[in-house]
Amino acid sequence: MARLPLPLSGLVWTKPETYVVDSLACIKNGWFTEDIETSKGQAFCLEVKRVLHHERSPYQDVLVFESTNHGNVLVLDGIIQCTEREEFAYQEVIAHTPLNCHPNPRKVLVIGGGDGGVLREIVKHECVEEVVLCEIDDVVIRVSKKYLPHMAVGLYHPKVTVHVGDGFKYMAENSDMFDVIITDSSDAVGPATVLYELNYYRLLRQALNESGIICNLVDSAWVNPRLIRNVLRSIKAEYPSIALATAFTPAYISGQISFIVASKEPGRELSTPIRRWTPAEEAKLCRYYTADTHKASFTHPTFVRKMIRESLEAVDSDVEDN
Amino acid sequence: MARLPLPLSGLVWTKPETYVVDSLACIKNGWFTEDIETSKGQAFCLEVKRVLHHERSPYQDVLVFESTNHGNVLVLDGIIQCTEREEFAYQEVIAHTPLNCHPNPRKVLVIGGGDGGVLREIVKHECVEEVVLCEIDDVVIRVSKKYLPHMAVGLYHPKVTVHVGDGFKYMAENSDMFDVIITDSSDAVGPATVLYELNYYRLLRQALNESGIICNLVDSAWVNPRLIRNVLRSIKAEYPSIALATAFTPAYISGQISFIVASKEPGRELSTPIRRWTPAEEAKLCRYYTADTHKASFTHPTFVRKMIRESLEAVDSDVEDN
Repeated sequence: MARLPLPLSGLVWTKPETYVVDSLACIKNGWFTEDIETSKGQAFCLEVKRVLHHERSPYQDVLVFESTNHGNVLVLDGIIQCTEREEFAYQEVIAHTPLNCHPNPRKVLVIGGGDGGVLREIVKHECVEEVVLCEIDDVVIRVSKKYLPHMAVGLYHPKVTVHVGDGFKYMAENSDMFDVIITDSSDAVGPATVLYELNYYRLLRQALNESGIICNLVDSAWVNPRLIRNVLRSIKAEYPSIALATAFTPAYISGQISFIVASKEPGRELSTPIRRWTPAEEAKLCRYYTADTHKASFTHPTFVRKMIRESLEAVDSDVEDN
Repeated sequence: MARLPLPLSGLVWTKPETYVVDSLACIKNGWFTEDIETSKGQAFCLEVKRVLHHERSPYQDVLVFESTNHGNVLVLDGIIQCTEREEFAYQEVIAHTPLNCHPNPRKVLVIGGGDGGVLREIVKHECVEEVVLCEIDDVVIRVSKKYLPHMAVGLYHPKVTVHVGDGFKYMAENSDMFDVIITDSSDAVGPATVLYELNYYRLLRQALNESGIICNLVDSAWVNPRLIRNVLRSIKAEYPSIALATAFTPAYISGQISFIVASKEPGRELSTPIRRWTPAEEAKLCRYYTADTHKASFTHPTFVRKMIRESLEAVDSDVEDN
């Protein structure tokens, strides 16, 4: 998982002067506490054993620390991106959910994801022939190779091409190319907010081939329902098949995260995988994802179902209401 | 939800001198941070608007504060028991899951649960004729009536009898009585540890009638898998039908909590409700629970499925191993 700071307007990213976080300052008395604007009066903390790396890249503040019980932890601009102990849940769900909704995914694009964890999962699908990673910040790639080797292993796979550059620009130059595009970004805070806007979903649509599927992070329905509502309302004109999935991710605020899965094809069933591994393969390949968890991840509490239904049914004039 | 401090041996609870928590000391710089032994290097914090009540009952440290974004919060011995904003998830899952696994629950016992939230859910089932609440600490009942009125409403329902006393003693005196028994306790820390031991599950079994079902809290598989393994291994000889359910509970550490659901009858299917409301009733009665979330709550990531399978298949000599 990696923050992907992208252009607020146009195709060249400009760092907003107002968004500067010092992740080291988030460590007090041996505990790291997330600096997160959207958390609404709640916070998550991890105990720090020692700081392994701290650097300001041209794009963001990059911190890696060793925690007492969760392995090494990658922090970008004060927000936890992954812990070695729990990362498998996030990576497996964001990778296998869209890939198993596609009948034959051969060409996959990952926007962000410089730690390599999502790549590690994608290449488990034998039908995948080529994966392109487009990560703007090579510092994330470098520190992941050094401190998160079990994720970074994905960066070295022969099917993978690592492209260091701007995802907006890459997609604008590569139309009608991909079966699946996964946006492995950070929360909608600061520069990453553009990844949750309509223009980004249009660019994704353009880069997909005609039966393509996307999977994008959209925060937790418990913490940021407004973001989910706005994304659903914005993109429904662009993607005729849309569904929301969730995963248990204990190291993110509220312990879960949601993903928008969407297809360019009308009537595509996304909540049931159309390809699946055998139970023996599932047990060998994954620690979290199964065909059953795939289905369960689209099953929501009543209040979330209501939110999804109202967002997808709302008429266009309602888009600005909420 | 309420901590239920019960006897460490025998039927009279004695407060261990070594377990004294000052919940007020958990508030620093306007934030409350949980004091929790089992959290393994992680912590959850809520922003405090003002302290509403602090008292040491004969059993525990009782704190109620108003948070900035989660409504009023009940804290027992330094651990968050419920927030007004999110409590519905926990209460609905722990109540409706066992009740909808039973063909005709008429008599229900709740051990703990002095806030009244679980009672509020149980009485939504028209077939239920009588609910007994056995809460050892009347301070929890008093402060809930004052500061958590949307939960405490359950305490006033005409079907409900509130018994202030020791759950161990009550069950020893009331054999073969209940269709469903719900243990609405706190984590396995300090005095509540006895609620996770074999003797407690034996007492529950004795208080159930022959087709009875229990539902007990057992922490999160991400935080305390050892507790879940030990409980599963211990109780499998007492209950021929056992299953594990989870719920998204964003205000508890790791954002989820697990429940053991078990029946005295062999071959009872627990993961699919045998009674269910119509979709219209579900939308009216619940904000979280539906027949679909019931089924999904028994669907687990690969590592949890493996843990359950190994615990239930292990021979008795393995019980002490882990």
